[in-house]
Amino acid sequence: MYYIGVIGARDCGRPPLQLAEEVGAEVARRGAVLICGGGSGVMEAASRGASNAGGTAIGILSGDDHRSGNAFLTFAVATGMGEARNAIITRTVDGVIAIDGEYGTLSEIALAIKMGKPVVGIGTWKLSGPGGRGKEIIYRDDPAEAVEVLYKLLREKIDD
Amino acid sequence: MYYIGVIGARDCGRPPLQLAEEVGAEVARRGAVLICGGGSGVMEAASRGASNAGGTAIGILSGDDHRSGNAFLTFAVATGMGEARNAIITRTVDGVIAIDGEYGTLSEIALAIKMGKPVVGIGTWKLSGPGGRGKEIIYRDDPAEAVEVLYKLLREKIDD
Amino acid sequence: MYYIGVIGARDCGRPPLQLAEEVGAEVARRGAVLICGGGSGVMEAASRGASNAGGTAIGILSGDDHRSGNAFLTFAVATGMGEARNAIITRTVDGVIAIDGEYGTLSEIALAIKMGKPVVGIGTWKLSGPGGRGKEIIYRDDPAEAVEVLYKLLREKIDD
Amino acid sequence: MYYIGVIGARDCGRPPLQLAEEVGAEVARRGAVLICGGGSGVMEAASRGASNAGGTAIGILSGDDHRSGNAFLTFAVATGMGEARNAIITRTVDGVIAIDGEYGTLSEIALAIKMGKPVVGIGTWKLSGPGGRGKEIIYRDDPAEAVEVLYKLLREKIDD
Repeated sequence: MYYIGVIGARDCGRPPLQLAEEVGAEVARRGAVLICGGGSGVMEAASRGASNAGGTAIGILSGDDHRSGNAFLTFAVATGMGEARNAIITRTVDGVIAIDGEYGTLSEIALAIKMGKPVVGIGTWKLSGPGGRGKEIIYRDDPAEAVEVLYKLLREKIDD
Repeated sequence: MYYIGVIGARDCGRPPLQLAEEVGAEVARRGAVLICGGGSGVMEAASRGASNAGGTAIGILSGDDHRSGNAFLTFAVATGMGEARNAIITRTVDGVIAIDGEYGTLSEIALAIKMGKPVVGIGTWKLSGPGGRGKEIIYRDDPAEAVEVLYKLLREKIDD
Repeated sequence: MYYIGVIGARDCGRPPLQLAEEVGAEVARRGAVLICGGGSGVMEAASRGASNAGGTAIGILSGDDHRSGNAFLTFAVATGMGEARNAIITRTVDGVIAIDGEYGTLSEIALAIKMGKPVVGIGTWKLSGPGGRGKEIIYRDDPAEAVEVLYKLLREKIDD
Repeated sequence: MYYIGVIGARDCGRPPLQLAEEVGAEVARRGAVLICGGGSGVMEAASRGASNAGGTAIGILSGDDHRSGNAFLTFAVATGMGEARNAIITRTVDGVIAIDGEYGTLSEIALAIKMGKPVVGIGTWKLSGPGGRGKEIIYRDDPAEAVEVLYKLLREKIDD
């Protein structure tokens, strides 16, 4: 069973929320587990998509209370660790879909790549690193395509 | 939905395993989520009990790979943090049942009490602290009774 | 250079504070680094002892701000991780002296033993575990003797 | 006393190492504490610079052993938490100087900005985020100037 992280910001406009909901639904339809930070914004929209499609959404919360996550989580883990939980999200997932996003999202993209997890981006950060680094994110505009390309990469890598 | 931690050692004799399996089953029958460290021994027996009773067992792993937990977990979170994950277990749960146990279990008992989570013990550590401290654990011998007494405490405390 | 943890509670009576200050001073006189949680109570008294004796006291704080530790710390690390920082303290030290203490201290004693670090106790928790476990703490009443016995154990174990 | 993080990769060419050593020396000359990941590469060069200039270099290690850091650290904290220690580095520091860098460095840049810590970059990542985000890093080529501009920002913000 693949664990797919959907990462993005707490505060964002309407279009990223619609994309996140569709990504969440597609993750669920394929039978994968959606992992997210469990908060509002992109995290909540993705959880709602997964949940409404009959899937499972697990929130890995920065806070202290497992009941404080968004209303569409199936389960929540309360780390009480603030931003350090970002490393637990990327450690737990097999791959990541990043949608829009602020600096927390950027830290998760970076940690995921460092940990060797594939990252697919929809309207998210562009990276330009020293020595030509920064080519790991695969960009897509369409939610279903984004999940499709991530699945292809996961199947090559992990015998699920 | 209550989150109940079942904690105990990786290596132990046969009797604690039977107790853990019965505790896990009883947690599941009551509709609570079982949280554990996701390893072998007491953690695996409790997960098997919950899983076979149709419940959910979530492992919060010390290691790096969500696939490395015991075979009876419904889901696993890979913290990659070694013993620091013990604090995530106690942070996440509403209450704890400790069965037998070595020093990791003792650290979780202590962290749970510090965080104000009720702890029920079956054949586990006895505490004797300075200034008369160490009276928080409620001891029971019977698995169903242990879960019953924990439930009673949780219902007084948390409007679930 | 040995790293010696001095652990104990935030709130305690006057006698543990005097013991902690003497332990801190003795740690410093021997040229070891004092590691503690950086808060008040036993942590502050030990830091004062080390600092006044010309030594180094490093606080590993549960909070977010390196300036929020007690006034006698030479340096502080802000983990922002709440109780999970207890595992960082025990991970960092070579051995531990536990003075008095509440449940946070008990968790650190347990984690230290699990990690194979020697623990010397002054008026602290007595352990009584299943299967006869709980004999690892070495008890002393005198601060200088406590540091002496810990040093003996460290010299056998670590070529410093 | 300001705590200044110097972040950069384990493996890098010769020029970033020279820059890191000069940054470390300048940090020490100004009386600030250098915080780094404690490994090799940029971390080691910055530690050497600080140390040779009579300053203090503290390593916050991803591994389990406080003796496993580079040879120029004054002190080391062993987190045993892998990449999650990046959040402890950014939590602890007042500001950051990023030199060259791979994905771990990028995660630290992102976490530092999220936590409101100023970031000065020398030959490091360029950020281009959704909605025009990504303008927080202040770029400089010269080590002394990089420390100077960071100091100016810290003095406006923190009454040290």
